[in-house]
Amino acid sequence: MNIEPQSLEALIGEFSSLPGIGHKTARRLAYHVLTKKRSDVERFAENLVNAVDRVHPCPRCYCFTDEDLCPVCKSRPDAKSICVVEKSSDIVPFERSGIYKGSYFVLGGVISPLDGIGPEHLHLPELVKRIKEESIEELILALGSSPEADSTALMLDRMLAGVNVKRTRLARGIPMGSDLEFVDEVTMLRAFEGRVCL
Amino acid sequence: MNIEPQSLEALIGEFSSLPGIGHKTARRLAYHVLTKKRSDVERFAENLVNAVDRVHPCPRCYCFTDEDLCPVCKSRPDAKSICVVEKSSDIVPFERSGIYKGSYFVLGGVISPLDGIGPEHLHLPELVKRIKEESIEELILALGSSPEADSTALMLDRMLAGVNVKRTRLARGIPMGSDLEFVDEVTMLRAFEGRVCL
Repeated sequence: MNIEPQSLEALIGEFSSLPGIGHKTARRLAYHVLTKKRSDVERFAENLVNAVDRVHPCPRCYCFTDEDLCPVCKSRPDAKSICVVEKSSDIVPFERSGIYKGSYFVLGGVISPLDGIGPEHLHLPELVKRIKEESIEELILALGSSPEADSTALMLDRMLAGVNVKRTRLARGIPMGSDLEFVDEVTMLRAFEGRVCL
Repeated sequence: MNIEPQSLEALIGEFSSLPGIGHKTARRLAYHVLTKKRSDVERFAENLVNAVDRVHPCPRCYCFTDEDLCPVCKSRPDAKSICVVEKSSDIVPFERSGIYKGSYFVLGGVISPLDGIGPEHLHLPELVKRIKEESIEELILALGSSPEADSTALMLDRMLAGVNVKRTRLARGIPMGSDLEFVDEVTMLRAFEGRVCL
């Protein structure tokens, strides 16, 4: 016999639709919600709708914001470098490390024909326009290290033919705190190729 | 610089408050919500509030239901056995296996002085009352295998002194599909002690 009330099943379904949440975890979360105070659950529901209502892409860099311009674009309007990332959340580790004081640009993905994502789905023309208009001096590609990211970088390179801008990408190598024994082959290959003089 | 919009941070906080969801997972879920259609997020929010509004404990067995009586209590009003579980979701595997056709009783936890849960926090008197009033013939304890569950069973045993009801508990032993090599000591001890003739 199915003993789960319909409204509970509906909630389990909602949690299941989130990435990385299986049916068992979704059930655990839904049962947990039932133990919460009504006011807390109401606030959760409000925050869900508020987030989609208020958050939108920044018109200058396409990172998520709930203001007219994102905090970075607001505070660094004259930055002469752009760090290009795939998605909005990729900006967080940069700002947490505090190493970078320039502006960002969220591409909205990488070219991936298998997933049906072509150059027309990304903000590539907007990026090229910004580089030209703001006379950007350095373009830092921080697109991850997949073949798709590499072909996106290549496409961007072609679109920037004739534009005088320094192009760099993040260093690839051994991450902090990792045991050499467990480093994968590709990382080792790149770390070796990119070795630097002491 | 903190680049996350406040309404997004609030949503990350909500997901973090769920059991087993850390800050990184909460951020991933919140960013995922932003990619959903507004109507889908609205439905999610509605289902959250609906669940707490509509779901309540069944007045007879305390399992979660959104009707006046839960489906089990409705369809098996004359059951002469009660299976006692800790929480509502523990009923699901019984009903899925289809082995049991009696009624249930959700105790609401097990006695755990360290967590501040005493006998007064559980539905023990209500259970004893039901056993007497409905002249229950068998009481099946399905409370898990912790010391707290054992002391709860002992307390129930004392409260039922003089009541003529058969008391059983679930068998303890090797679970289906497990490799003997990896069975823990306590399970092995119990499986050995509880060995049966072929």
